[in-house]
Amino acid sequence: MMMRMGSVMRKVVCLLAWLSVGQVSGSYLPQDMNRTLQDLLQHYKISKSDIYDGKQVFPKEELKGKMESQMLFMGGVLEAYEKLIVHMLKELPTPSPLPATSGDKVDTSDPSTAKPLAAGNTRSNLNKVLEKIRDLKLHSYKEQVKILHELQKLKHIEMDNIKVQGKALWELPWIYEKANSLADNVMRRRRRRRRQTRTKSRLGA
Amino acid sequence: MMMRMGSVMRKVVCLLAWLSVGQVSGSYLPQDMNRTLQDLLQHYKISKSDIYDGKQVFPKEELKGKMESQMLFMGGVLEAYEKLIVHMLKELPTPSPLPATSGDKVDTSDPSTAKPLAAGNTRSNLNKVLEKIRDLKLHSYKEQVKILHELQKLKHIEMDNIKVQGKALWELPWIYEKANSLADNVMRRRRRRRRQTRTKSRLGA
Repeated sequence: MMMRMGSVMRKVVCLLAWLSVGQVSGSYLPQDMNRTLQDLLQHYKISKSDIYDGKQVFPKEELKGKMESQMLFMGGVLEAYEKLIVHMLKELPTPSPLPATSGDKVDTSDPSTAKPLAAGNTRSNLNKVLEKIRDLKLHSYKEQVKILHELQKLKHIEMDNIKVQGKALWELPWIYEKANSLADNVMRRRRRRRRQTRTKSRLGA
Repeated sequence: MMMRMGSVMRKVVCLLAWLSVGQVSGSYLPQDMNRTLQDLLQHYKISKSDIYDGKQVFPKEELKGKMESQMLFMGGVLEAYEKLIVHMLKELPTPSPLPATSGDKVDTSDPSTAKPLAAGNTRSNLNKVLEKIRDLKLHSYKEQVKILHELQKLKHIEMDNIKVQGKALWELPWIYEKANSLADNVMRRRRRRRRQTRTKSRLGA
């Protein structure tokens, strides 16, 4: 009876928790993923004071405003989640035949991490979450992830190389023209859409 | 007479060069910037074989497709240009009172870099180009640059920190919901716009 009550309470707390983080209409979170996350939160416990310290891991400010921009930022967030969960998987104690020890790269000051027997379960839960994130990235954020990877490549430009410097200057007129014309076109399109919306609302009135 | 001919030829070659890089409609490149770039290309010389080696510093593939995505990639390109030119400025021989030497971090195998007297001119030209790029970023790519900086911050998430891991899991339900609803909304909006375009073209016919 106590266990059932505990389970119900856990579900209620979890539901309230993610409802309080922000308002999202609709429901896209599958029940099994919700359960998986609840189980994981038993392992990666956080205190209420940490939850409400005002420091979010993933800022929500960028998830407002223009949809295409939001999509791109979300692509980056999904990439970061994927990396984080892969990292968390690596940090788990190694499975048998070697007996798992809680000291392997895991913070032993936290008693929740000192349960090698639960590591298998945690591993399977993390893998489930990882799969869901990868599915979402692959099916809905392909385009955004591609741009992010291309942006990443720009970080590796050989700035010391005199050939690269010369070529970059040589490419600049085209880039400068394109950057200006692109910004102009986007501005014009936005103005046209605003006009259309105003006309529609006037006709509606 | 010879000098005038040389100057005209230089202009023609430069015009042909940037027209050949790609097709951009309109003209946003101010004459003074064009001249500045021509002068800089006298300093940062590149051979024809380097120009046509098929390896562009800034890939143009991402500057096709959806406008908002192009804008974001262009934001990254402008950021990279800014960084590169600041780097090139730092590489120039130091100005007087110390006599400028060509050996200071600059590739001495290239005779064009062994002209300390021209360094002042190059510095002023690089500064002009830098200003133009910064203006463009500030006036037309503010939104994109802001997102890029926020994306950059995601790289600094403390993946080893167990509190961060727990918080990230705790934030995941909201993020997962938002990521799904966002992708759904964007898809619906695209479908609606396609329908509107089809209806308009039918009415037009």
